[in-house]
Amino acid sequence: MKGADTRRPRCAGKVACVEINVLIEAATRGDARALGRLCSVVERGDAQARILTAKLYAFGGKAWTTGITGAPGAGKSTLTSGLVEEALVEGERVAVLAVDPSSSLSGGAILGDRIRMGAHAGNEHVFIRSVANRGHLGGISIAIPAMAACLDGLGFPEVLIETVGVGQAEVEIASSADTTVVLVTAGWGDAVQAAKAGFLEVADIFVVNKADRGGADATSRDIESMLDVGPVLDWRPPVLQTVASKGSGVAEVWKAVREHRAYLEAGDERARQRRRRAAHDLGSALRANLAHSLNTEEPASDLLDAIVTRRTDPWSAADRLLQAR
Amino acid sequence: MKGADTRRPRCAGKVACVEINVLIEAATRGDARALGRLCSVVERGDAQARILTAKLYAFGGKAWTTGITGAPGAGKSTLTSGLVEEALVEGERVAVLAVDPSSSLSGGAILGDRIRMGAHAGNEHVFIRSVANRGHLGGISIAIPAMAACLDGLGFPEVLIETVGVGQAEVEIASSADTTVVLVTAGWGDAVQAAKAGFLEVADIFVVNKADRGGADATSRDIESMLDVGPVLDWRPPVLQTVASKGSGVAEVWKAVREHRAYLEAGDERARQRRRRAAHDLGSALRANLAHSLNTEEPASDLLDAIVTRRTDPWSAADRLLQAR
Repeated sequence: MKGADTRRPRCAGKVACVEINVLIEAATRGDARALGRLCSVVERGDAQARILTAKLYAFGGKAWTTGITGAPGAGKSTLTSGLVEEALVEGERVAVLAVDPSSSLSGGAILGDRIRMGAHAGNEHVFIRSVANRGHLGGISIAIPAMAACLDGLGFPEVLIETVGVGQAEVEIASSADTTVVLVTAGWGDAVQAAKAGFLEVADIFVVNKADRGGADATSRDIESMLDVGPVLDWRPPVLQTVASKGSGVAEVWKAVREHRAYLEAGDERARQRRRRAAHDLGSALRANLAHSLNTEEPASDLLDAIVTRRTDPWSAADRLLQAR
Repeated sequence: MKGADTRRPRCAGKVACVEINVLIEAATRGDARALGRLCSVVERGDAQARILTAKLYAFGGKAWTTGITGAPGAGKSTLTSGLVEEALVEGERVAVLAVDPSSSLSGGAILGDRIRMGAHAGNEHVFIRSVANRGHLGGISIAIPAMAACLDGLGFPEVLIETVGVGQAEVEIASSADTTVVLVTAGWGDAVQAAKAGFLEVADIFVVNKADRGGADATSRDIESMLDVGPVLDWRPPVLQTVASKGSGVAEVWKAVREHRAYLEAGDERARQRRRRAAHDLGSALRANLAHSLNTEEPASDLLDAIVTRRTDPWSAADRLLQAR
């Protein structure tokens, strides 16, 4: 298998390949319908999706991806919408991937949020895609990073990924972005130490939203003191305050995203981060493939059999897989 | 690489191998010191650890592992201690793996908890191991499941894994157990929807602890209504109430663990779960190996290079790895 990394995946069928090439060409010109169809292909997660991703990945690596996550109702869509405007002011094209918690408890708020985001719907410099968090092979852990990589390859300089931080997958996706913005609501109590601690690991920037309510300063102080007791970091996440619904403080958040980018690009931190992301995306993909193998006659199926029947153990098997390339 | 799954790893050195065999023999006889030393070997995550895990994995598959997770201060150690007593009453030997949030915000509570667990310290039917959540290769995502597999292989019929559900890794570990108990405190507010939703995915049993405080019934109702709006499950997690510090309700939790086990073992659900766990543990191991490759000249390092330089993409690389065995 040595040297196999340089192989380009071949087209599964001529028609599909031609169609994908046509779509890519149209999408590169900014055709929103073509962009939408390409995203649908990636979302399906099938062989054609893999061909598309492999094609576009080769052209990527230029976009900056910003993840925006936080509890339901924290105002993520409103902030995201504001960040889109900031990017537009800079003359950048922006793509937004928003994970809809489809089966979710908080489903009620989503429609309203999407409508608000709809302010950008007619703008040809903005591409918005809602992705349901159920019902595709490998799940959103693959679909969203793969889609972001494709939008990168198609020339979008800014990709925003908005996920509700209520499950492992969602937090993980947001944290796989170049810059991760964690949104909390003013007045967070002690009771959410758990959630805070989970977020603490992934945040590059904290935003205390709805700062016109009481308790914003106390919440900011809470976060700052958590950062104080944590490990000393080269990049200490700034803690900002916004009233996203009024646009207040949003420019400062975008500025912080830029500063985080400048920080990463200044030293050799960026190179390290690229390797971290490669490891992260590959790890997610392997895990999703394995999960998929559970229900199919996929290649990994006999490996799982070997573990289940205790002919090997997961840790030795992992060593061998990565050594066997 | 076909057929490689049946190979037994060879000893790295004769001395190490002899020593490990002596330790295994002593540990099988119930020697606590030998058990502790074997756990230390697994924790190191080095080549010797891999030899040990591979050896013991072959003898495992009989233990029932129960994960106990929840926010800091929810009373996990107290409940775990109570469950140990229940298992002892049944005449079972019990191993407890407790993840210490070493760098953590809530570090203060830990010492007290450990002292309480110390009630079992002299009992030769109980083995308790605290594991720091920092400072070993691959992290606790590998160390804990591998240790649990070893204790299984050494003949412990019950393995309890206690983790603070404040980070992805911790929740993931608890959810990799056969039965996952999620502990919440009476009086949880709406503000923790986020945490709840994260827990909802992994819980087989909910326990509302400190039920002698106000709000226990409201909290139970909250959880029940979340379960109502969620997908219809073959196993609907029961929502129990405890005052773990007084031992009240703990027997019912243990009974629920037994019922969950009976449910899994009755149908073909158990076989499916074994495959799920194999996929899960293999996925974690691959991910941890990749993370480890970031800082070393490990075999996977050139694969990461290929992704970073865009000669391949993570999703195609994952396909190829799992197909290349």
